[in-house]
Amino acid sequence: MKKRIITISRQNGSGGRYIGERLAKELGITCYDEKLMDMVAKESGFALDFVEEKGERITGSLLFNIASSLTYANNVFTGNGVSLQDEIYFIQNRIIKDIAEKESCVIVGRCADYILKDREDCLNVFIHADEKSKLKRAVKYYNVSEKDAPAVMKKKDKARYNHYKYYTDQEWGMASNYDLCLNSGLLGVDGCVQLIREVLEQF
Amino acid sequence: MKKRIITISRQNGSGGRYIGERLAKELGITCYDEKLMDMVAKESGFALDFVEEKGERITGSLLFNIASSLTYANNVFTGNGVSLQDEIYFIQNRIIKDIAEKESCVIVGRCADYILKDREDCLNVFIHADEKSKLKRAVKYYNVSEKDAPAVMKKKDKARYNHYKYYTDQEWGMASNYDLCLNSGLLGVDGCVQLIREVLEQF
Repeated sequence: MKKRIITISRQNGSGGRYIGERLAKELGITCYDEKLMDMVAKESGFALDFVEEKGERITGSLLFNIASSLTYANNVFTGNGVSLQDEIYFIQNRIIKDIAEKESCVIVGRCADYILKDREDCLNVFIHADEKSKLKRAVKYYNVSEKDAPAVMKKKDKARYNHYKYYTDQEWGMASNYDLCLNSGLLGVDGCVQLIREVLEQF
Repeated sequence: MKKRIITISRQNGSGGRYIGERLAKELGITCYDEKLMDMVAKESGFALDFVEEKGERITGSLLFNIASSLTYANNVFTGNGVSLQDEIYFIQNRIIKDIAEKESCVIVGRCADYILKDREDCLNVFIHADEKSKLKRAVKYYNVSEKDAPAVMKKKDKARYNHYKYYTDQEWGMASNYDLCLNSGLLGVDGCVQLIREVLEQF
């Protein structure tokens, strides 16, 4: 296979992350998900948990964003307009571009489809599923109760939507942002991996 | 192949209509596009042009919608709240449900994915493409100049978006409404037909 970058965006509970891992393993390339977070945490000096939370989600805490862009000195608050969230985004952005320049890989989430939009060797994939399939998956793998799962998934997807909208001015999950959008509830994890591989091989 | 309905929604200029026709031909089933419009025109008594225009687009002419829901009698305007656009939608809705009940087929546009959302034998596809590919297609096939094409395509897609939003309360083009979304600019018409057939055969 010639050099290819596959970005995978995904709804919470759709199995998109696992599809990314499986795909990378089958292709013998690296899946940047946890590993990417480690790199951002190391470079930024922020804790891994903080990077994981702020690197892909905006939870509507506007006050936090404003406050985190201020510096206190000589009894005065001054701000450079760059919040901690922005700092993480800039570092993440640079690391993603560096990785894509160097090697074939799978990158999960983190606006990678947008960050790499000028590259021609990039295949952008979005994975989603029906509510029933996502619920089943969330309860099985994410340690969340059947009662709480719908609200938890909705909240996480909304935070991803807000983050993507804020940094890209595009709608997260809109088909036209991706080359291939797949319903993993219908196609299954294996089916999604198979279709993505086929597109990579043929197009 | 067991009985299957394939709905194809598409951006203007993406070749989605042609993909639907090609797919239907290869599968030996009917593609309901022009034919569906003929059926709606015949049943409603409206002119074909009017049905084609109002059956899939809302162009923002609110006054027309209000006015068309009024009846003039005994020097008074009275309204049943049902516009001509609504009437067309209701008739279209019934015809689409009847067709899907009877036979395997391809249905292009007309909110068919939403109208048939409770059927399990339905595969919902969305076709889109990059601006450059759509422009090329529009100039070649739709008798529009290279200068005018971007605005024409944008206007048509916006009218489709508004129509879909109005009748379904969902976002037209949002990946989660469809099982499979394909970038025909990358995959080509043949590639899209091939992938849809593969999904139909395997899943």
